[in-house]
Amino acid sequence: MRKISAIGIGAGDPAHLTVQAIERLNDTDVFFVLDKGSEKQDLVGLRQEILDRFVERPGYRVVRAQDPERDRTPADYRKAVADWHRLRTDVYEDMIRELGPDERGAFLVWGDPALYDSTLTLLDAVLARGNVEFEYEVVPGVSSVAALTARHRTTMNQIGRPVLITTGRRLEAGWPAHVDDVFVMLDAQCTFSRLVDEGLEIYWGAYLGTPDELLLSGPLTTELAAQIRSTRSAARERKGWIMDIYHLRRPTT
Amino acid sequence: MRKISAIGIGAGDPAHLTVQAIERLNDTDVFFVLDKGSEKQDLVGLRQEILDRFVERPGYRVVRAQDPERDRTPADYRKAVADWHRLRTDVYEDMIRELGPDERGAFLVWGDPALYDSTLTLLDAVLARGNVEFEYEVVPGVSSVAALTARHRTTMNQIGRPVLITTGRRLEAGWPAHVDDVFVMLDAQCTFSRLVDEGLEIYWGAYLGTPDELLLSGPLTTELAAQIRSTRSAARERKGWIMDIYHLRRPTT
Ligand SMILES: C[S@@+](CC[C@H](N)C(=O)[O-])C[C@H]1O[C@@H](n2cnc3c(N)ncnc32)[C@H](O)[C@@H]1O
Ligand SMILES: C[S@@+](CC[C@H](N)C(=O)[O-])C[C@H]1O[C@@H](n2cnc3c(N)ncnc32)[C@H](O)[C@@H]1O
Repeated sequence: MRKISAIGIGAGDPAHLTVQAIERLNDTDVFFVLDKGSEKQDLVGLRQEILDRFVERPGYRVVRAQDPERDRTPADYRKAVADWHRLRTDVYEDMIRELGPDERGAFLVWGDPALYDSTLTLLDAVLARGNVEFEYEVVPGVSSVAALTARHRTTMNQIGRPVLITTGRRLEAGWPAHVDDVFVMLDAQCTFSRLVDEGLEIYWGAYLGTPDELLLSGPLTTELAAQIRSTRSAARERKGWIMDIYHLRRPTT
Repeated sequence: MRKISAIGIGAGDPAHLTVQAIERLNDTDVFFVLDKGSEKQDLVGLRQEILDRFVERPGYRVVRAQDPERDRTPADYRKAVADWHRLRTDVYEDMIRELGPDERGAFLVWGDPALYDSTLTLLDAVLARGNVEFEYEVVPGVSSVAALTARHRTTMNQIGRPVLITTGRRLEAGWPAHVDDVFVMLDAQCTFSRLVDEGLEIYWGAYLGTPDELLLSGPLTTELAAQIRSTRSAARERKGWIMDIYHLRRPTT
């Protein structure tokens, strides 16, 4: 039976790799690498760095494919998403066919594979089609949430209280009900700007774990929001892409 | 200057350790170990196993202390919590005094140090007192949330949707507003039992990453809730303690 591992590689620092991940890397015949457009070339580079640094077994293969671009301004939104999902499932199915009958393949998944990532959903979609057979397993990793709190030396939760992890788009609707700690991912719009001067703290980080890491934190004032926005857009301009995350806290004591 | 590391060691499997954590372990002069009562002796054992397996440098010291017991049935709840916090801060301060002026100490923190753990709060409390000086850093780890999803091969979030991490006590108030995915930790009461036959899925795990690992999942019916409760109490009886976590999902499609 073909075997596949979805391996969490941590959120930017190769030293986030776990012992379990390294063991799996060394047990893998074929690595699947998806190119996601030029801006993310650095991320493909980091995956190669991980292979170079941690894989000791010789003779592994790398299978590359182009991740289909999503139509960002579709006439029919639902149809566009469904089409994109189908195209991506095709790409995954084709990659998996490159595995010999008893080989192991691996996807190196950014951060932790369970958090805002489509690899597991796509593997399930390929299995559901029934055209190729395989077993798969997941190797957990350090998420960008864990990377952010570690660098700011903060906790996710206040004592005995809940934590929400959400997206920039969801935060547009305002502060979520019944929580005091919110982690916001995938936010190109700097939605924190709508929540200034409400007694919140912000802990912001970009390119966490990489040599380009940026950190800013403090009471979420108009000034700090402006500073994060300008830091963010300057960095984005310089590197051509950005990945950032932030924690908003409403102190309860 | 004294240096301290709060090192996330993952949630049960020594192979959850990261490269960064192993580097730090090998850079540490003194390990601080808190004994938390007999039921958790296995957990202290796992920390020793990690030191034995991953520390190559000879001559490190281990400083043990007794974590003060909290009064679980106090007359004055607020005072009891404040007293307990003060006593624990004393214990941490005393342990840190065992460090020579240029030595590095380390706490091995279960899972990820940011999630429902008091180590960082206590380090901040010791620093705030100003009696001992030190710098500290946090090494992120694989949390029990990541360990749970990996074993069930599930995602934390549904596409583009938020995720709540909360406690059993909080869930007693009912299903949280505006979320479809909830992770419940620290729940000795099996609070999921109150949410049967409401169209939820449950993914439950105990002793994750250890040889005693237990997993159960499926639609949250009365039967499955009863099966989890009886599995849980049998295991707890057998081992003398239990640690479990679960994910409740309301499917959105
Ligand atoms: C598609 S999600 C993948 C998340 C990943 N699975 C994880 O566990 O962190 C990408 C988002 O994660 C966050 N992110 C991931 N890595 C990051 C890093 N090194 N620095 C800052 N944000 C990061 C950003 O919010 C980004 O928009
Ligand atoms: C005090 S909290 C510490 C959490 C830890 N910092 C983390 O990142 O997972 C302890 C709770 O974590 C969960 N937990 C931790 N390790 C676990 C494991 N190996 N299996 C199941 N649950 C676990 C349980 O809900 C337990 O009540």
